[in-house]
Amino acid sequence: MTINAIVFDAYGTLYDIQSVADVTEEAFPGYGDIITQIWRIKQLEYSWLRSLMRRYEDFSVVTRESLAYTLRILGLEHDNDAFDRIMEKYLHLDLYPDAQTTLAALRGRKLAILSNGSPDMLNALVANTGLDRMLDATISVDARKIFKPSPDAYTLIESTLGVAPASVLFVSSNPWDACGAKAFGLNVAWIERVMPEAMALACVESETVPPLTMFKAIRTQMDELGVTPDHRIRSLSELPKVVATYES
Amino acid sequence: MTINAIVFDAYGTLYDIQSVADVTEEAFPGYGDIITQIWRIKQLEYSWLRSLMRRYEDFSVVTRESLAYTLRILGLEHDNDAFDRIMEKYLHLDLYPDAQTTLAALRGRKLAILSNGSPDMLNALVANTGLDRMLDATISVDARKIFKPSPDAYTLIESTLGVAPASVLFVSSNPWDACGAKAFGLNVAWIERVMPEAMALACVESETVPPLTMFKAIRTQMDELGVTPDHRIRSLSELPKVVATYES
Repeated sequence: MTINAIVFDAYGTLYDIQSVADVTEEAFPGYGDIITQIWRIKQLEYSWLRSLMRRYEDFSVVTRESLAYTLRILGLEHDNDAFDRIMEKYLHLDLYPDAQTTLAALRGRKLAILSNGSPDMLNALVANTGLDRMLDATISVDARKIFKPSPDAYTLIESTLGVAPASVLFVSSNPWDACGAKAFGLNVAWIERVMPEAMALACVESETVPPLTMFKAIRTQMDELGVTPDHRIRSLSELPKVVATYES
Repeated sequence: MTINAIVFDAYGTLYDIQSVADVTEEAFPGYGDIITQIWRIKQLEYSWLRSLMRRYEDFSVVTRESLAYTLRILGLEHDNDAFDRIMEKYLHLDLYPDAQTTLAALRGRKLAILSNGSPDMLNALVANTGLDRMLDATISVDARKIFKPSPDAYTLIESTLGVAPASVLFVSSNPWDACGAKAFGLNVAWIERVMPEAMALACVESETVPPLTMFKAIRTQMDELGVTPDHRIRSLSELPKVVATYES
């Protein structure tokens, strides 16, 4: 078996969505981190709920609605300018430091993104960060009007790149996405960026369980969904080694 | 238009799932509340994710897996006895204090539960709390192998009770469930048990945002899903008044 395509999740995998916290902190001093965490939880929930309810709206709508929810429950008033400034950050997220060198090292195979993001969000983000020159395709689930981890979303890899699931390595730091891709039949590398030991230690050392640690934990630790990704890595830079295991 | 059937969500609506915290606190002193909150978030996430992945397992499996996840990320070791004792609590949840008097007051119409719970879990719970004598049906989504808020789940009301959606009042404290039922076409009363003012106040008064307040907030405040329930009430006891509005 060889790997003919490597397909990446975008948010949280190639792009650091925690980098939104700087902008939210600027707009709402003292609340940057908590806004970022709640916003992310609700953004994901709404993508799954709308998919299940068969009320799909694209990710820019879901992202706006989840931000509106977050500011409302925190009792934070906001004008449209602050709202737009925060949303704008999604088009200029920071790449993880090893993203570009990893993509360069993997050159020769098909390289793509498969993301819940809307085409507009993804195309702007990829262009703004120079990844458009390194990727063969930037695939949005919008073509199927349903979000990951629906199998319908992962079918877009084969229909776009012409590579069968067994020859695809899918890469995601999102546990539910790694599980969804594995359940669909892709080879999957899960990036575990937050270590469980760090989490447990934080719980032991604080009098109460620290809220931000917990919010991060419930997003970054492997889920119990009855499937297990093939590879567990700590950063994108381990990927060439993973791909090589398929060639021996 | 008249209301011929009143259908209740079970967990969090007729039954207080926060009552699990007593048992988790006993098993893991100091962690009762945080376990309960994370467990609930993950239980819901897994029900949605498995539905979307088309990997349905019944709610007892999802409930066990989400508890296993919760104990793991908190770094809490456990033996099977402790695990079983906590799970057992789901068969003996406390009814909200006004549940029985409200059901009695609504007598004469069809009364039922539509829940994500498995048939085993629901039948035990309903029998243990005496509601089996007050309900015409206890409906589990298991018959359709998909969880709420999928429209497929809500179709079970008409197929079981023979009452069309326009003549059903659906009652839930879970915002996503109230939205799903409304999107499906039922009349919906949403019970808001945690007040937004209490939440905002807690945020202002604490130096940091209190974690348990936030975990509760993201479960109890109305979601931004593009639909709005017909009625917003504070407790079950307001239901006879709501039903009367359909009869004038």
